[in-house]
Amino acid sequence: MRRWNGWGDENTYLELPENGQSFLEERVGKATPLANATYEEVEASVPDSRLPESELYTVEPKDRILHARGQSLPDWLAMKSGNMGIYPDAVSYPESSDDVRALLDEAKKKDWVIIPYGGGTSVVGHINPLEDVRPIITVDMSRMCRLLDLDEQSRIATFGAGVPGPLLESQLLAKGYTLGHFPQSFELSTLGGWIASRSSGQQSLKYGRIEQLFAGGRIETLDGSFDLPTYPASSAGPDMREWFMGSEGRFGIITEAKVRVTPIADQEKFFVAFLPTWGMALNCVRTMVQAGIPMSMMRLSNVIETETQLALAGHENQINLLEKFLKFRGASDEKCMMTFGLTGNKAQNALSLTQIKKIIAKFDGVYTGTMLGKRWKEKRFMFPYLRETLWEKGYAVDTLETATDWDNVDFLLNSIESNLKNALSEDNENVHVFTHLSHFYGQGCSIYTTYVFRTADTYEGTLERWKTLKHTTSELIVNNRGTISHQHGVGQDHAPYMAIEKGPVATELLHHTSEFFDPNSQMNPGKLLVEKTATESVSSKKQAV
Amino acid sequence: MRRWNGWGDENTYLELPENGQSFLEERVGKATPLANATYEEVEASVPDSRLPESELYTVEPKDRILHARGQSLPDWLAMKSGNMGIYPDAVSYPESSDDVRALLDEAKKKDWVIIPYGGGTSVVGHINPLEDVRPIITVDMSRMCRLLDLDEQSRIATFGAGVPGPLLESQLLAKGYTLGHFPQSFELSTLGGWIASRSSGQQSLKYGRIEQLFAGGRIETLDGSFDLPTYPASSAGPDMREWFMGSEGRFGIITEAKVRVTPIADQEKFFVAFLPTWGMALNCVRTMVQAGIPMSMMRLSNVIETETQLALAGHENQINLLEKFLKFRGASDEKCMMTFGLTGNKAQNALSLTQIKKIIAKFDGVYTGTMLGKRWKEKRFMFPYLRETLWEKGYAVDTLETATDWDNVDFLLNSIESNLKNALSEDNENVHVFTHLSHFYGQGCSIYTTYVFRTADTYEGTLERWKTLKHTTSELIVNNRGTISHQHGVGQDHAPYMAIEKGPVATELLHHTSEFFDPNSQMNPGKLLVEKTATESVSSKKQAV
Repeated sequence: MRRWNGWGDENTYLELPENGQSFLEERVGKATPLANATYEEVEASVPDSRLPESELYTVEPKDRILHARGQSLPDWLAMKSGNMGIYPDAVSYPESSDDVRALLDEAKKKDWVIIPYGGGTSVVGHINPLEDVRPIITVDMSRMCRLLDLDEQSRIATFGAGVPGPLLESQLLAKGYTLGHFPQSFELSTLGGWIASRSSGQQSLKYGRIEQLFAGGRIETLDGSFDLPTYPASSAGPDMREWFMGSEGRFGIITEAKVRVTPIADQEKFFVAFLPTWGMALNCVRTMVQAGIPMSMMRLSNVIETETQLALAGHENQINLLEKFLKFRGASDEKCMMTFGLTGNKAQNALSLTQIKKIIAKFDGVYTGTMLGKRWKEKRFMFPYLRETLWEKGYAVDTLETATDWDNVDFLLNSIESNLKNALSEDNENVHVFTHLSHFYGQGCSIYTTYVFRTADTYEGTLERWKTLKHTTSELIVNNRGTISHQHGVGQDHAPYMAIEKGPVATELLHHTSEFFDPNSQMNPGKLLVEKTATESVSSKKQAV
Repeated sequence: MRRWNGWGDENTYLELPENGQSFLEERVGKATPLANATYEEVEASVPDSRLPESELYTVEPKDRILHARGQSLPDWLAMKSGNMGIYPDAVSYPESSDDVRALLDEAKKKDWVIIPYGGGTSVVGHINPLEDVRPIITVDMSRMCRLLDLDEQSRIATFGAGVPGPLLESQLLAKGYTLGHFPQSFELSTLGGWIASRSSGQQSLKYGRIEQLFAGGRIETLDGSFDLPTYPASSAGPDMREWFMGSEGRFGIITEAKVRVTPIADQEKFFVAFLPTWGMALNCVRTMVQAGIPMSMMRLSNVIETETQLALAGHENQINLLEKFLKFRGASDEKCMMTFGLTGNKAQNALSLTQIKKIIAKFDGVYTGTMLGKRWKEKRFMFPYLRETLWEKGYAVDTLETATDWDNVDFLLNSIESNLKNALSEDNENVHVFTHLSHFYGQGCSIYTTYVFRTADTYEGTLERWKTLKHTTSELIVNNRGTISHQHGVGQDHAPYMAIEKGPVATELLHHTSEFFDPNSQMNPGKLLVEKTATESVSSKKQAV
């Protein structure tokens, strides 16, 4: 059973090794957990739905509770405290595009607010109902999860857009194919959600982002249905798929999606190397990706993340041995762990590995083979469970991510980390901060920063701490050539920063487009764009053109 | 000096080998050339400009003549006949974004029509002035051609958008880099034109289309300036670059462009193989591209194009020897020529070649090494000159191109060819038709068809022949899962087919976007989109959703 108030499956629990706890106590301080509300308490407090019963949806409290919140830290605090905020008035479970069509027709007539819901894994408030005088219906797409067609010549698979990662991959695997899209939320997030939020998977170096995988599909808007046809490429004006990728439910609901699939590769291996310093490590990964060597993934942890990962990894003896080996080879206190993956035919993988090893050696790195790479693969979707573990110990964990060009990576990363470390200094609170780079492009890479802080004495106080951390860092990112998000999307939490990132013309154009599809702001209002009636509070330090 | 009434440099002339002419006479019939107008005749007939003299532009007849037409077949017939149609009233040569800004401010105030002009190489009527009661100013971007910045860490080069291919590559080469974008129009077409029309280069397999190369830049619209910032990737809502790629001057003028560049590769080679039949050849190239082998280009000529190329190639002795060799190896009458390129480091190229040779062998192909590949490289931008040569013999040449998914490639290619072959049968005219596939994707490829027909006794009659060929085939393409253009763009000639390709919702959205930037239709009207006041004449045979 899925956890009603946190991440993933109830029966999966990640133990913290003993030295893990002392590691955190040293860095953040001893912590006292906040008390969690029970499901029964929450159910007893759900207000009545403003909608009558109907065949189009259910108004059961349980469905409304399970669709009220995603996985952002504010969502967590809401769920753990039991102060859930706004609930949808109803949840609809369409089984076909026609069902979605019927619902939207009714929504248009009755002026309902519509929130499309994939896996509910958003960490930026994509699916949260906001206060509205109109009834709110959340559209849970989970019943539209089938492989509808597979064109093996063109390698295009058509799915119901509500299909979650594992079900998508298992249906493809049965035919010998993979989509290769593995975001950390893979176990729960859905194809439609990936498209609507422009997500990226851990193996994007080989398979591309969702932008490279989404070939077309069917969209239901308030005003009618239409198809995005599939073409391998086209110069017939702007590419309409680009309007819908990242549209976050504002323009319509993607009900069926055609995606580009690949046969399962002959061989896939993940490797780890350690670089002696951050400077060497940064140059090493840039050289690797700019050399165009075929790889499927790469991840570079900075010094603190490397230290933290080895401390929280467990397997103390193995890690001690590794540390000794690395010390012997000259990589010690300042070492950075780099993980990379090769997915392809054996001859190509062998050549790629030879070329990568040369680059690693050039930067005085220590190649350690596949042992830690195997572990990375096993644990690749487990990190969110750690949040649960740490929560029970009194620590709140959140992540921030961006992407920027290579010339700005080091500066932006340091600015983010130092801002987070010092953001709670007025409260005399330490924040443990560490970072990895995980999506690489010739032009730059993503920066993914995790921060751990103690919960305050109250939920309100904890939320205030988060707001300070999140807001000051987000403002810093968009004012320093970072995108507000490389892979999580915009939702409610990032919407206030969009105007700075996109600039006034593009922001106005997005509003103009939203008005085209949805003149009364019925489609997921308040997400992606701050409604024009809201007051702006984020300051731009960018130079005007 | 550039030809005023045709393609390229006046001093470059491609001789037709003797057997080339007889080859065409056999297939299309003996032909009589139409008489060309002289430049002096044309200059004498230019009407007065409707604009007074100004520092913002020139009203000289010569400038107006040289910017009146592109390189479509209707453009050719206009230039060769001297009946040039509509001239711009003035031509502006901005030297900076500020110059463009000043011009657009004035244009907005005075209600001028503005046509951005790159290299004037459009084959679909992008830059043609259309009849308008308002004065028309063509904005020639050629003076904005400098490399403004090169960020070697992020590998981003910033150029004035008017830079033509050779000048762009030579400025980069001096620093050890290449953009790698080589459309057939490379010698004359410009970076801004490539972006505005979503072009694709011959080595897109390695470097990507312009979509993968364009990182950001500066746009001047009627309402003001703005920057498209560079990010390696982002999930912050729709990607604004996508609004401008393919916008064909409707939304604004791209004045500066930031592009992703690559260091010059260690090694580049082009190879040729022959496949015994079209069926084998088609499967061979699909297998090659779907195997993900790193290549930089591929081109597959069908039987007739292979035969035509060998006949028009000259070097009779060499070709005869080759033919004998191929016959000996089993590839004869039905053979198809496949050219492919490897651009990278030597070890990678060697592995790729080994893997490609295995696939060629699997499909009973004959690998012939680099001799014909070298020739392809030497002649890669020469094809448009052949048009000039054949014109002088009385033949008109045009090309049509599209892209479609693999499952539809053979069907669509055959439909296009057979439609063209029979389109002039009422006039008892033969059309010589041949095709190659030249841009390859996992999902499908482009189809590039050349057709040669005799000019009629008059220019008007010749234009009618072209209209029949073009219209019937374009209609066939968009009704059969082909895009109206893979690499040439929409312009005036393809605009009537856009509504079928994109569907009513997307078409309406494009109009809505155009109105946002340009409420009075001053920016390149009649291109990309048929103005709403025009009557629709193309029929859709697509099923309604």
